[in-house]
Amino acid sequence: MTNSPLPITPADIDAAASVIAPYAVRTPLLSSPSLDALTGARVFLKPEVLQRTGSFKFRGAFNKLSSIPQATRGGGVVAFSSGNHAQGVAAAAQILGMQATIVMPADSPLSKRERTKGYGAEVVLYDRYTEDREAIAAAIAGPRGATLVKPYDDPFVMAGQGTVGREIAEDMAILGIVPDIVAAPASGGGLIAGIAVAVKARFADTSIIVAEPAGFDDHARSLRAGRREAHDNDSKTLCDALMALMPGELTFAVNQRLLSEAVSATDAEVGRAMAFAFRDLKLVVEPGGAVALASLLSGKFDARGKTVVIVLSGGNVDADMYAKMITATY
Amino acid sequence: MTNSPLPITPADIDAAASVIAPYAVRTPLLSSPSLDALTGARVFLKPEVLQRTGSFKFRGAFNKLSSIPQATRGGGVVAFSSGNHAQGVAAAAQILGMQATIVMPADSPLSKRERTKGYGAEVVLYDRYTEDREAIAAAIAGPRGATLVKPYDDPFVMAGQGTVGREIAEDMAILGIVPDIVAAPASGGGLIAGIAVAVKARFADTSIIVAEPAGFDDHARSLRAGRREAHDNDSKTLCDALMALMPGELTFAVNQRLLSEAVSATDAEVGRAMAFAFRDLKLVVEPGGAVALASLLSGKFDARGKTVVIVLSGGNVDADMYAKMITATY
Repeated sequence: MTNSPLPITPADIDAAASVIAPYAVRTPLLSSPSLDALTGARVFLKPEVLQRTGSFKFRGAFNKLSSIPQATRGGGVVAFSSGNHAQGVAAAAQILGMQATIVMPADSPLSKRERTKGYGAEVVLYDRYTEDREAIAAAIAGPRGATLVKPYDDPFVMAGQGTVGREIAEDMAILGIVPDIVAAPASGGGLIAGIAVAVKARFADTSIIVAEPAGFDDHARSLRAGRREAHDNDSKTLCDALMALMPGELTFAVNQRLLSEAVSATDAEVGRAMAFAFRDLKLVVEPGGAVALASLLSGKFDARGKTVVIVLSGGNVDADMYAKMITATY
Repeated sequence: MTNSPLPITPADIDAAASVIAPYAVRTPLLSSPSLDALTGARVFLKPEVLQRTGSFKFRGAFNKLSSIPQATRGGGVVAFSSGNHAQGVAAAAQILGMQATIVMPADSPLSKRERTKGYGAEVVLYDRYTEDREAIAAAIAGPRGATLVKPYDDPFVMAGQGTVGREIAEDMAILGIVPDIVAAPASGGGLIAGIAVAVKARFADTSIIVAEPAGFDDHARSLRAGRREAHDNDSKTLCDALMALMPGELTFAVNQRLLSEAVSATDAEVGRAMAFAFRDLKLVVEPGGAVALASLLSGKFDARGKTVVIVLSGGNVDADMYAKMITATY
């Protein structure tokens, strides 16, 4: 723990909010009487499934691409991503008239690959378990003079994702409610870091809880150890969006200071949460987007009697897989 | 056409808004960049799938039950419904501490029957094609002194549903936008009538379009004929929520004066709209709830260049059926 300045400030997030405002969806805060009854908490949902491209990733991508100087934009952008950052970068590049190349795992959901192409990006596939996506992306970017757009460890990306927290804080202030807890999923930790900075700026006592897939608990390990640690390399999860090996350097500098707690949810708990969201919330949530909800529903943190904001971070899931998840018996 | 007063006024809808406010979800207006791109219109969605009980029906039911004098409440309420009105009445009765008995078709979706029971109501099944639900409901209500809660042809029910239109008008006024078109599904016509009164009170020139399932075009026929007409008795549709035989007497008195146009969508068009809502909007919409969206997507009315509000009226669909709809090839 140090008192050095954090990599992003609330002012960076305010600036990002202005940059993305003309293109990003300002997602509402939703409430659900059945969810309140089930949990004994007062729950607000922040449905980033309703965001442009179906996840929060558009926010950070658009803010980052907008920061690239005009003289450099001709080289285009390169990104690596399992799918949501891919779509965010592709859609932002399309709006800004830039060329985008996305390096995606060959086993990423078909719909994510197709939608990325649909935003006009070139998609290059790689093997998630044997190849190094950062090296592939760098090799493509170099000769072209393209800008590499990292999925989380970048101040502009983090500030963009922080607009999720800024909107939560704004809406809670309008309602006159102080949230006890804000919980969101994490992979590299950019979303939760941005949310923490924005929410803590207005509500210093609100607990920020990070939710991870079971086996991909690198934030839990790292917070415990006080330094960045990886999760087990042989883990598997339904949550294709949340498979980063360890927290980012910049994101962890924030998260180490501002997060209160780390929780995790198993594939079965995530499946139940997706089915609950289908049946009772009428929202389509992908596995990775449902981890915070799954943690709430399976009692991984103490919510009873509290005001809790749950971020549903994405909804990009193949129809076949979704059909299985909502019809399964858990 | 006459100039006699309509069965409900904007003031009735204002009163209903106050009555339901503590319990109903104030649903947001959503926008979708992909939907705008696809249609060439500026589209706002009113997602009543997010309403308590998963459809707009809670609004009218709660307003109606709240109007029953204390002295009469002990007799409870009886309603007939294919499922959404059933849940609305059951949930409203549970909140108000009243007993509810619901007469439902034996072929209504299992989830709707189960959810109705889940709100504490007694469910009585009947055969949609051979038995008279109104007679069954009346026979149950009589001896108990129960109040019959009609699904649409009641001023309190209509005023409650009209709060959907009131919220649309309020939110559009805040945005400083005059809607060219508001389109919503109809069965008995209570929702569209309430919306028409509320929206026209603020935006007199907005066109109100009613959307029906193909073959269940009793509003189209009735508007054309200038009097209430039934649809063909042997029609079938996926839209279990929209099977009323003809417009209501009170609802048609409103709709005849205030509606601009009637459109319809086939089962395939409804299926495509549900799949679009899954894939691009991340909202779970039931067949009957998707008819206005289906009409927009299949070009049944002229939307290009216009500002259009589409009501997604309900999202209560069995998982098995939903799985089929989103994985089908249309």
